[in-house]
Parts: sequence; C-alpha cells; structure tokens
Amino acid sequence: MEIVRTIADLQSKIKAAGTTEVGFVPTMGALHEGHLSLIKRSVSENVLTVASVFVNPTQFNDPSDLERYPRTPEADCALLASAGCGIAFLPSVEEMYPEPDTRTFDLGTVAEVMEGRYRPGHFNGVAQIVSKLFYAVQPKRAYFGDKDFQQIAVIRSMVRSLNLPVEIIACPIVREASGLAKSSRNTLLSAEEKTNAALISQPLSCSREFMRQGAGVAETAAFVTRGLQNEPLFRLDYYEIVADDTLLPVKDWNESAHITGCIAVYCGKIRLIDNVHYK
Amino acid sequence: MEIVRTIADLQSKIKAAGTTEVGFVPTMGALHEGHLSLIKRSVSENVLTVASVFVNPTQFNDPSDLERYPRTPEADCALLASAGCGIAFLPSVEEMYPEPDTRTFDLGTVAEVMEGRYRPGHFNGVAQIVSKLFYAVQPKRAYFGDKDFQQIAVIRSMVRSLNLPVEIIACPIVREASGLAKSSRNTLLSAEEKTNAALISQPLSCSREFMRQGAGVAETAAFVTRGLQNEPLFRLDYYEIVADDTLLPVKDWNESAHITGCIAVYCGKIRLIDNVHYK
Repeated sequence: MEIVRTIADLQSKIKAAGTTEVGFVPTMGALHEGHLSLIKRSVSENVLTVASVFVNPTQFNDPSDLERYPRTPEADCALLASAGCGIAFLPSVEEMYPEPDTRTFDLGTVAEVMEGRYRPGHFNGVAQIVSKLFYAVQPKRAYFGDKDFQQIAVIRSMVRSLNLPVEIIACPIVREASGLAKSSRNTLLSAEEKTNAALISQPLSCSREFMRQGAGVAETAAFVTRGLQNEPLFRLDYYEIVADDTLLPVKDWNESAHITGCIAVYCGKIRLIDNVHYK
Repeated sequence: MEIVRTIADLQSKIKAAGTTEVGFVPTMGALHEGHLSLIKRSVSENVLTVASVFVNPTQFNDPSDLERYPRTPEADCALLASAGCGIAFLPSVEEMYPEPDTRTFDLGTVAEVMEGRYRPGHFNGVAQIVSKLFYAVQPKRAYFGDKDFQQIAVIRSMVRSLNLPVEIIACPIVREASGLAKSSRNTLLSAEEKTNAALISQPLSCSREFMRQGAGVAETAAFVTRGLQNEPLFRLDYYEIVADDTLLPVKDWNESAHITGCIAVYCGKIRLIDNVHYK
C-alpha cells in the first residue's frame, strides 16, 4: 500500500495504477471493523481502492468534539494495508483547505432534518470535504457506512446536484457483540458508558419485532424512546421514523416503500447515532 | 486425541493420563460451535477433557426424531481434536445398554414440567445415560449447554440424589448470527425453515427489553407468544416464565432471584427449544 499526503502525489499514483475502476472510502481515521468492511467491499468490486484519512474540521459544529476526536494514523495505515487498500491518502488541513471553503451547498431537506437540525453546518462541511475528495480521487464508486444513514442521503444529493459520476454505495452497520454500532467515538466512552451504550441498539432492534407484531409508527417510536428514558446516563436528541427517500417523518408504515428509524443520543458527553431499517 | 469405543478402553486411557482433573462433555454428536465452546471451557479448566458422542435411544420419546437425528462421527472427531479434547468416547448401543436399563429416577418436579410434560420419559432416559457415562468417566466437572436449560436442572437433581462427586457447569448458549440457538437439529431445517427459525430468538431476546421497560410477567409472555403466533410455520408447545430453582411458573418478577423464559416450538416438523434469562 502506498501512503500519500498531497493531491499531486495521490493523482500521480492513481494514474500510474492505470485503471478507472477506482473505489474510494473516505474516512476520518480511528478505523474500526466498520471501516474495514467498506475497504473490503471496495477491494472486491474495484481494481484499485483508495482510502482517505482526514479529520475534516469544517464538519464539526462542536469544537470540543473536534478536539477530542480520536486520531490513530499509524494504526489506520496498518489496518488499511491489511484490508487490501491500494493507496492511503492522509492530507494536511492546509492541503485540503489552502483557503477557507466558502461554498454553501443546496442539499435539500435531507440535510435539514435530524442531524441537520442538531448539528448546524455539519452536512455543508461534509459536502465540502467529500466533493473535494471526489474531485481529487475521481473514483467510480464510493463506499459509506449505513450508520451515517442521513449522511449517505446528503452525499447522494450533493452528487446529483454537482453531476458527479460517482456511484454511492451504502454498506451495512457493523456492530459490537453487544449490539453497539461500531464508531470511532466509541473509544471515547468509559467502560461503564460503553456497557450502557449497548442499550441503544437493544430497543432499536427490538422495535422491529414490536412493529412485526403489529405496532403502529407512533407506538413503535414510543417503545424506543421509553427504552432510553429509563437510563439516566442517556440524553436523547431525537428518535425519528422517516421515509428513506425524503427523510421526512412518516405516520404510517404504508407511507413509503422504505422506512428507517434514526436515533441520536448522548451517552455521557459522547453523542452517538444509530438506526434501524423497518422496511 | 484418542478415540475409544469401549468403557474398558476409556477407563484405561483415563487412568494412563494420571490425573483426577477430568472434565467431561457428554454429547449426541453432530457437533457445532455450542459443543465446541463446552470442550474449550473444559480444556481451560481441566488437565484432561473427555467427550462422548452417543445418540442415546432411551431419551427419545419420538422414534422418528431418533431416526432422523443427525450422525456425523468423523466430522465430530475432527472437531473434538481441533478443540483440544483428549479422549473421544464413541460407544455402541450394546456397550452402553448390554441389557435394558429399567431404572426409574426420582428427579422431582424439575423433570415433570415443560419438556417433562411434552416429552414423557425423555428426562429419565437422559438420567440413565448421563449416570452411566458419569460412572464410566468419573469426571470432576461436567459441562452442559444452557440451551438445554431444563436438562441441566434435571442432571443436577440426579447428581444430588445419587450423591455423585461431579460439578455441573452450565455454559452460555451459542447462537447463529441470526440469533438462532445452535442445535444439531438445525441441520434438519430447510433453508426457508432456518430463516423462519431465526424468528424464535427475536421475540425471546426482545422480551427482555420489554421487561426492562416495565412489563409484567404475563405481558412479557404474551409478547413472546404473539411474536410466534404471527408465523404460520410455527406451532408453539409452550412458553413458560419460571423460577430457575424450581422451574415452576412465576407470576411476578419478585418471586425468585433468577427467572428464565423457556420455549419449545415446532418449526415445520422439527422441534426446537430456546430460553432467555430475565434475571
């Protein structure tokens, strides 16, 4: 695996590979099995896989979140190499933002609901960095984890509005044995918090059984929120059951072909998100 | 690993090992990861591990169940060896039952409820073979999978009534990724049945979340049975929420320090059991 730090180096290495079958996995590092599943999927579907490791400052609405975000570049490179990645791109902030990025993207309502409401500016920052990375890598396919369900919708919206020739591929959430969705932020949890955080996925996954037994949308949502309200360590930002295409709340299971429940919850100081597909 | 087929051979091999730290895992073969977890636990706690592979006819109340019970002795021996087993004991029916075993054990109420009611004679047959095997192996510790939760209570009752110096160790259920409890009988399920069988563990595990949210015993039991009644492929024998010590039904979570929900359900022609510990 090659490790490059500038866009010029990156592009000459990609060119040297002599293929347009390029899969791309943008990451913020602190890699875990979730990321590696994206790499492996890309390796299986492309001639060359490029991964970026870059903690993008413009997508952090909370400076303390940026400050404590875990950074493990050496381990990341070892993991990327072991998963079959061809090129690891670890740019500096100066490389990616030689001058402030003043672009404001029109991402539609999918960027305004849920995370958009609780993390103002976050998705615009995501669109800034992902568009820059897409321009630099020019991948045929890009891979994202389904934990960031809304992010995928936002990126698809950006790709459409910029007419980028990139196929966006969503990959399933990878979970701990406890059910906790793998996340770089999990490393910031204390042992006790981590034990408790496992309780997020429990009402979430069980709410599918609840729905299967005939519960309506409101009743199903109440099942999830009640499961978390019992735990003093949690502070719920939202739980919303939304249509996959619009990310707008549904009131009835028949309102859309695909419906997903999305949660954001503080476990102590650490904000975690997760989701479950109902249909 | 040594493979022996007679009690005389078994005992001379155990004697030659020169240790009283003998762990024993009685099985009916068709080994899966659940069995292997017992072998590994025994290997970690004893100097010598003995496993038996014997489909015991006296514990089958249903001849067609005995007839179709899977038999894979070569694969079993390879798996036992790979897990660190010291001696595999594969006796013949003639070796274990040179004459009919007419013993009737007084196993108490733990053998009369649930499986005892639906599979008359089953636990007496289990007590017959396990007592014979315990006499033959004279283990210090014996390991059983928690899937057969009631069987463990019955064996403990037998050990007490016969004053056998064997410690009975229960090991956690090992599950498929789908949640389906590993069982030799799973190999008898069609692909469609296996997919459906995964739905047994779902209401079961979710009923813990239901209880955690404040549901009473009857409500929790109804949650599980409702989850299965929706599936035409299933026919429920019973779902009972019982005290771990007596195996008698409880009406309130406060009635016992340890409470378990036990299910027996036909998936097509194959009868499956599973359980969940509530507290």
